Amino acid sequence: DLVERCLQHFQAGSALAGLKLLITAGPTREALDPVRYLSNHSSGKMGYAIAEAALAAGAEVTLITGPVNITAPSQAQTIAVCSALEMHHAAMSQAPEHDIFIACAAVADYRPETVADNKIKKNDDGLVVKMIKNPDILADIANSDPRPFCVGFAAETQDVAHYAKGKLNRKNLDLIAANDVAKAGQGFNTDNNALTVFSKTQQFDIAFASKADVAKQLLNIIHQQYNK
Amino acid sequence: DLVERCLQHFQAGSALAGLKLLITAGPTREALDPVRYLSNHSSGKMGYAIAEAALAAGAEVTLITGPVNITAPSQAQTIAVCSALEMHHAAMSQAPEHDIFIACAAVADYRPETVADNKIKKNDDGLVVKMIKNPDILADIANSDPRPFCVGFAAETQDVAHYAKGKLNRKNLDLIAANDVAKAGQGFNTDNNALTVFSKTQQFDIAFASKADVAKQLLNIIHQQYNK
Repeated sequence: DLVERCLQHFQAGSALAGLKLLITAGPTREALDPVRYLSNHSSGKMGYAIAEAALAAGAEVTLITGPVNITAPSQAQTIAVCSALEMHHAAMSQAPEHDIFIACAAVADYRPETVADNKIKKNDDGLVVKMIKNPDILADIANSDPRPFCVGFAAETQDVAHYAKGKLNRKNLDLIAANDVAKAGQGFNTDNNALTVFSKTQQFDIAFASKADVAKQLLNIIHQQYNK
Repeated sequence: DLVERCLQHFQAGSALAGLKLLITAGPTREALDPVRYLSNHSSGKMGYAIAEAALAAGAEVTLITGPVNITAPSQAQTIAVCSALEMHHAAMSQAPEHDIFIACAAVADYRPETVADNKIKKNDDGLVVKMIKNPDILADIANSDPRPFCVGFAAETQDVAHYAKGKLNRKNLDLIAANDVAKAGQGFNTDNNALTVFSKTQQFDIAFASKADVAKQLLNIIHQQYNK
């Protein structure tokens, strides 16, 4: 029994040994002027939980993180960024060194076309903010050569499976983990989550659980698919 | 000596006894859709420091706070809000019960004209966000009758004194505290600050110091002017 538990512990702690994982987490902030920005409700908790679980399973982890209020695992190599452009730059330069890329960050799709040097003053006419598309970090890495095994996330509020599978194919991903952030208690800034993971041919359901548990199960699926 | 120190302590702890202060703090978040929002870099630290200092000086404090990551003083009556409209509603209903209103929150001047029910999907054409003006909490309270003694803040990146004095007059304030958030180490999300406080006829400089110290000095100026 003791031997078995030691063995389990040893196996659990080394399942991902020798693998280098690149994980993005948190939101990005897109400046409008020196004080204003656009962002989203990502807390970074899911990405950080994946980083923790990967480290516990023996992987080497590089964590590229947007501005969050949680502490990064000390064993991870952490790169703090703010905007989507900064995250894109960091991820593109890190990707070739890694076996698996898990894009968990909620990267802003758009940024203001121009960033004012000084605080924009109020005027009576309202304000029109013209936004342009940010580069697609996940698609750019998935379409690079050589490329790591690529895992995306799809946080949706409707037609979750439909959008997730579309993203998997369009971006040339290996796996996509979909979650319905409109459901109470899961998704952004919560401690629990539930995911449906799609490969091009398979579907895996991870039931509602703590983000730590969900992270472990997700890594098992990723590892299994990576070894195929 | 002991008697004097006790006396000082007693006086320090009761300078604002009997006064009710209403303080707003932190940023607001203006939703674009269920996941995206516009916000600003306010940390809430200055407003919370003023609340702490006011409580220590014996005042009753109501703190209306936007989303921040610091803990509100337990003795304050705290009202948590998210958007500028929510803060406006809370402040307008609280103001008549208070002697002094200190508007320290960085309220979003604009909000998106429409809030999408579901996450806005990416398309190739970029995104144009039409923004409309939020109500002006400080001006609305300063122009109500009866009105509390009104103290505004002006966080600027240029022509600080010019903009601050304009705001004082335009909004019919009693005092305005101006800070240059473009200066390193002061303003948004820092632990220190420096302020220039303007009444209609006077100017007071509060030198660079911890936000706790700056809060104490600011309350002294407010108290002095309130008693005039």
